[in-house]
Amino acid sequence: MAAHDTALTGLVEALRGLPGIGQRSAQRIAYHLLQHDRPALRRLALALGDADQRVGHCARCHTLSEAPVCHTCADTGRDARQLCVVESPADQAALERTGSFKGYYFVLLGRLSPLDGIGAGDIGLKPLLERACDGTVEEVILATGFTAEGEATAHVAAETLRARGLRVTRLARGVPAGSEIEYVDLGTIAHALADRR
Amino acid sequence: MAAHDTALTGLVEALRGLPGIGQRSAQRIAYHLLQHDRPALRRLALALGDADQRVGHCARCHTLSEAPVCHTCADTGRDARQLCVVESPADQAALERTGSFKGYYFVLLGRLSPLDGIGAGDIGLKPLLERACDGTVEEVILATGFTAEGEATAHVAAETLRARGLRVTRLARGVPAGSEIEYVDLGTIAHALADRR
Repeated sequence: MAAHDTALTGLVEALRGLPGIGQRSAQRIAYHLLQHDRPALRRLALALGDADQRVGHCARCHTLSEAPVCHTCADTGRDARQLCVVESPADQAALERTGSFKGYYFVLLGRLSPLDGIGAGDIGLKPLLERACDGTVEEVILATGFTAEGEATAHVAAETLRARGLRVTRLARGVPAGSEIEYVDLGTIAHALADRR
Repeated sequence: MAAHDTALTGLVEALRGLPGIGQRSAQRIAYHLLQHDRPALRRLALALGDADQRVGHCARCHTLSEAPVCHTCADTGRDARQLCVVESPADQAALERTGSFKGYYFVLLGRLSPLDGIGAGDIGLKPLLERACDGTVEEVILATGFTAEGEATAHVAAETLRARGLRVTRLARGVPAGSEIEYVDLGTIAHALADRR
């Protein structure tokens, strides 16, 4: 690939910077698609356009959805008393795959990150408050990440929600399934000790 | 992401299977593009279509090129007596980046791999022969990989080219720059000993 091959350069540029894809991977993918798999290249171009046109956000929980209200929110068989708050559609999908939560979700589409200039107004805390105060929600389960940003988000959300009289809980912190204690980091062990049951 | 979100599922499917991208990475990229970076999504879709339409193969060396004859082959200032044979456009790009070869290239676009049913007829050995016997080429440098398939390809190409009276050489095998001998595999050390200079 050289500077005069602008379409090839352009493809590498467009691939580079996607999560987990650097310059070398971008080149490898571009070469692979152009040299070995033109049908896959066309499928990917079509799939991108298709997803761009059809995927929006659920009006109720804000997750990625093709319907105005997502499949989960449209399911009337779930427990409306429980609302689980997550940072992203990917987090929601992970929780849903466990099959152990039967309430509804609310996707913040972000988390507090003062260093990046993301404050309480930039994530969906206000819509969360409206959603949580619909009269049927009794418990809000905060399932934001156990990172500094996720913890800050959970803290702010908890304060706001508790002020409205809602019961607020947080995912349990502890030793991950399948772990040998020896290899678990000390902070996690300390939390698991404190929260023992 | 659930089964009813077909555009999202379709995008994940189209991403999965690209070199280095599995199910998890594909999901991560799809969510990222849809949730955080629609402009990047559109740029990628356009770049794919653009590359598909504009990138073909150089008529002379078979590398990926937007012009009928690639930039390297069109450069009349290079040494026409040397022809370097590589497996792929990526290999050609790597050699070119070293800046230490001033001849022309020939890209096989493949390598012998009897286990995958790829024989001498499936890679560009016949066009290579025509290209190498143009009357000006004096030395053919075989720069196929030092894998079983690359070695087999080099072996077959060398036999065919030598039968036509051409001088055939192979990239040197040895200890990679920056290596500690202790950590170099034994086969490489044995070759480096045998080819010492």
